[in-house]
Amino acid sequence: MKAIVDLTIIPLGIGVSLSKYVAACENILSDAGLTTQLHANGTNIEGDWDTVFAAIKQCHEVVHQMGAPRIFTTIHVGTRTDRDQSMDEKVKSVQAKLR
Amino acid sequence: MKAIVDLTIIPLGIGVSLSKYVAACENILSDAGLTTQLHANGTNIEGDWDTVFAAIKQCHEVVHQMGAPRIFTTIHVGTRTDRDQSMDEKVKSVQAKLR
Amino acid sequence: MKAIVDLTIIPLGIGVSLSKYVAACENILSDAGLTTQLHANGTNIEGDWDTVFAAIKQCHEVVHQMGAPRIFTTIHVGTRTDRDQSMDEKVKSVQAKLR
Amino acid sequence: MKAIVDLTIIPLGIGVSLSKYVAACENILSDAGLTTQLHANGTNIEGDWDTVFAAIKQCHEVVHQMGAPRIFTTIHVGTRTDRDQSMDEKVKSVQAKLR
Repeated sequence: MKAIVDLTIIPLGIGVSLSKYVAACENILSDAGLTTQLHANGTNIEGDWDTVFAAIKQCHEVVHQMGAPRIFTTIHVGTRTDRDQSMDEKVKSVQAKLR
Repeated sequence: MKAIVDLTIIPLGIGVSLSKYVAACENILSDAGLTTQLHANGTNIEGDWDTVFAAIKQCHEVVHQMGAPRIFTTIHVGTRTDRDQSMDEKVKSVQAKLR
Repeated sequence: MKAIVDLTIIPLGIGVSLSKYVAACENILSDAGLTTQLHANGTNIEGDWDTVFAAIKQCHEVVHQMGAPRIFTTIHVGTRTDRDQSMDEKVKSVQAKLR
Repeated sequence: MKAIVDLTIIPLGIGVSLSKYVAACENILSDAGLTTQLHANGTNIEGDWDTVFAAIKQCHEVVHQMGAPRIFTTIHVGTRTDRDQSMDEKVKSVQAKLR
């Protein structure tokens, strides 16, 4: 089952600068062979359900190991059985309808 | 790794009534032995990371089998290494501070 | 326009204990006359769109005043034009379909 | 108060194709003079709190007028008082730390 996911990881108890933790997660997702797109509020991910969620679990493990005692994460997951659709196609489908 | 999760599953393409799909997911979570609390905008879940996410994957599989061609799900996940905390303790910690 | 909302406010840069900030927001929502239900991962709110969002803005203002330099908030909003539905009815609609 | 927002609008009861509704919202955000970045799972928005949330309310009104009887929306909102930060700076701050 293919999933298109938006991941936002918020480490708590380590101050206000989160970017080094987000960068560590980007590396984990990349090492997992996943297609990703970093954006201003999270990271979009396209891939097999199990691969995506194994990588997200590893992100929690690594961010804790980096010193964050608490993590709050939001995940948006889309799956569909009617047709295959990539992240790029989702964006283009909207762009084609802008006036 | 223990996780406290808030799960909102939105089946698309099946009309505006979502409750039978949500009920099917409740049964899946319950069968997985997870502690759950249904609320007006989702379901809170407390349990082992792997058990929780295996059940969420099964929810997607079952809701597709029930006829939903597309699913959009939001997941909030909290983990912490500083101490163990239950869902009930989270609520009581806030209630104790209300004026 | 009536909205049913799930609000999760995460103050950053103030350590790992968030409950006093959440309690301050509960008081704001209550003072605004809104119907609320605190749960383990947020607060469900039922009310007029403008009243709800004015209160959420006030939550951000107050949590900053309490000392949080950064806030990350998630909001789930449901609106519908086909019929009126309360938070309690949403929960009961699912419960009636559990096996 | 400046806000950086991630907006995902999910119209329900209109089938599985959501792009024309998302495009209508993009036009509303653009007409409001807001800085936006469409991505595969939503739209990032940077602007004054009141302008952003007035536009989001208008999105709900217009998507209902277009025929969607029910809407489920997720909003991520970030505010900070310690310093000004743009959406581009958030992305660059992570990219600078990738290996």
